[in-house]
Amino acid sequence: MTKPLAPGATIGILGGGQLGRMLSVAAARLGFKTCIFEPAGDCPASHVANFHMQADYDDTDALTRFAQSCDVITFEFENIPTAALDTIEALRPIHPPRAALATSQDRLTEKAFLQGLGLTTAPFADITDAASLDAAIATIGTPAILKTRRMGYDGKGQARIMTPADAATALADMNGQPAILEGFVDFTHEVSVIAARGQDGAVACFDPGQNVHHSGILHTTTVPATLTPTQRTDAILIAARILNALDYVGVLGVELFVTPKALIVNEIAPRVHNSGHWTQNGCAIDQFEQHIRAVAGWPLGDGSRHSNVTMENLIGDDVDRIPLIAKEPASLHLYGKPQARPGRKMGHVNRVTGPAT
Amino acid sequence: MTKPLAPGATIGILGGGQLGRMLSVAAARLGFKTCIFEPAGDCPASHVANFHMQADYDDTDALTRFAQSCDVITFEFENIPTAALDTIEALRPIHPPRAALATSQDRLTEKAFLQGLGLTTAPFADITDAASLDAAIATIGTPAILKTRRMGYDGKGQARIMTPADAATALADMNGQPAILEGFVDFTHEVSVIAARGQDGAVACFDPGQNVHHSGILHTTTVPATLTPTQRTDAILIAARILNALDYVGVLGVELFVTPKALIVNEIAPRVHNSGHWTQNGCAIDQFEQHIRAVAGWPLGDGSRHSNVTMENLIGDDVDRIPLIAKEPASLHLYGKPQARPGRKMGHVNRVTGPAT
Repeated sequence: MTKPLAPGATIGILGGGQLGRMLSVAAARLGFKTCIFEPAGDCPASHVANFHMQADYDDTDALTRFAQSCDVITFEFENIPTAALDTIEALRPIHPPRAALATSQDRLTEKAFLQGLGLTTAPFADITDAASLDAAIATIGTPAILKTRRMGYDGKGQARIMTPADAATALADMNGQPAILEGFVDFTHEVSVIAARGQDGAVACFDPGQNVHHSGILHTTTVPATLTPTQRTDAILIAARILNALDYVGVLGVELFVTPKALIVNEIAPRVHNSGHWTQNGCAIDQFEQHIRAVAGWPLGDGSRHSNVTMENLIGDDVDRIPLIAKEPASLHLYGKPQARPGRKMGHVNRVTGPAT
Repeated sequence: MTKPLAPGATIGILGGGQLGRMLSVAAARLGFKTCIFEPAGDCPASHVANFHMQADYDDTDALTRFAQSCDVITFEFENIPTAALDTIEALRPIHPPRAALATSQDRLTEKAFLQGLGLTTAPFADITDAASLDAAIATIGTPAILKTRRMGYDGKGQARIMTPADAATALADMNGQPAILEGFVDFTHEVSVIAARGQDGAVACFDPGQNVHHSGILHTTTVPATLTPTQRTDAILIAARILNALDYVGVLGVELFVTPKALIVNEIAPRVHNSGHWTQNGCAIDQFEQHIRAVAGWPLGDGSRHSNVTMENLIGDDVDRIPLIAKEPASLHLYGKPQARPGRKMGHVNRVTGPAT
């Protein structure tokens, strides 16, 4: 374990979206400077950061200067090119660890890793061609979902297979990319655990939140989630097992399907997570500060929940409701994005519904 | 009343210290861009702002460009040169109003204004020379405090007069500046009300906090303050009367001395206030967002208190305690100042002590 980073040090963040923006604010609150690496100009994170290195991920010179200007590096998304990570890691520590990135970047690797830990996942199979898809459908059954192994998010790169007759169309939707077939899980609801692990190995999990998606995009997260005491404990133990197996440093999001029999791990995200935004108004220390504390080698903070909260994402033209939301007794968080395109996350609103129950 | 400012607009902030820093973060959270006007480089607010105009307050060209780049202007301190305000106000709206600045910049004007509203202040007298000081001491009595009329803060520009024999020394301490003699108030404790008024005239006050000073600098603020229900109501009514009389827009700090007979107004500050920092961890909407909402013409937010909190200022080498504070279940706020000089405010820590009582 390295020495805790002193205030005044610089934390580099790969990616300049809303997660980078909220990480940057949390870093500033602890006295750190921030440098954002992001190809796009006028990005959300750059509005609240000390420096913005505007360059592409294949610009080795820029990556080198970026790393040299920082004391430690983290990231806000998981699809960072491997070569870029190679360049940076030769110069400065990166947290969370690259093993976590490699695991979560590929749905097949991720599922195999989770099963290897003894955790329950949906049934799955590696799909390389029509024959392997037919064989997998015969084993797993329908309905099932065909997904690209890499680069999928917010429901993109996915095709439903309701009957075996859908196989050919679904496979064509993958555009020749490696894919995975996942069996349908008959779950009652989805929860997620926002879990943190420090450089000293300490683990702290926020209370699980209950997620509702619309059109494949997170719509709301509500705390407390509907869980039995045993399920709540299990959810946290699952997250802790994943963190420890990856020798993880930082915040990780774990999505779980709740069924009467078991908690089924849907996927993990090696970063702060949309379903953890409620922590900004439900806890003294939110997921963003918790991540920065871990990355900086600080002790994890107190993430106990003081309030019940429902977080609602503001997507696309939901921003038209901002004047009404501004009148509510609610906490609005906007990302500074100039244009509201369909499906684009523009902000979120945290509605505190009472003291913690 | 003007139309509410839309997200994406730019808010200009005069002054780049910690108050400007926390205002800038609050503005970003509502989707605004910020431009800081501050002569010093690498100032706390610039770390979390879109733009930093580094120029002096007598640089009319820079002030003009600053104003033209912003949609509305606010400030984080009250001693802004009048000529600078003239330049800016010719181009863009300034909130809070200049009348509030003029009132609070001069202790004599301030006291006369407060008495004119029927509020109780310490007895006071205008001091122009030794003769007026002797006469004032004869009327007001000792102990008393001689203060410069302008530019005093954190206990600077003040001299105690314990007996009439101290008069000459105290007057010499004023360095020939206009002064005011204030009679000693036998108070049990000090509270402050952080009060906000919107462009629609709506008033919202945070729960009063109880202040403890060390060496003339705020040390802690605790909520709830020790006040009877009547005193609590009176404190808020006093703040509202001041806001309305000034046709105020924004957040104003009102310091009150509590005596068994009355609440005595000590001073007002036309800005967010150190004694309101607890709101960051005690309310869904803190004083910084409340100020930005008012300045932007938005509805005021919900500032109701959900937790008991004690805020402690970290002054000078208090920063040596940061590693210990980082281990506490507390919320640390650092200002990004490179050097910890004696008396310099480096940060603060909010300790949530339980649900609101």
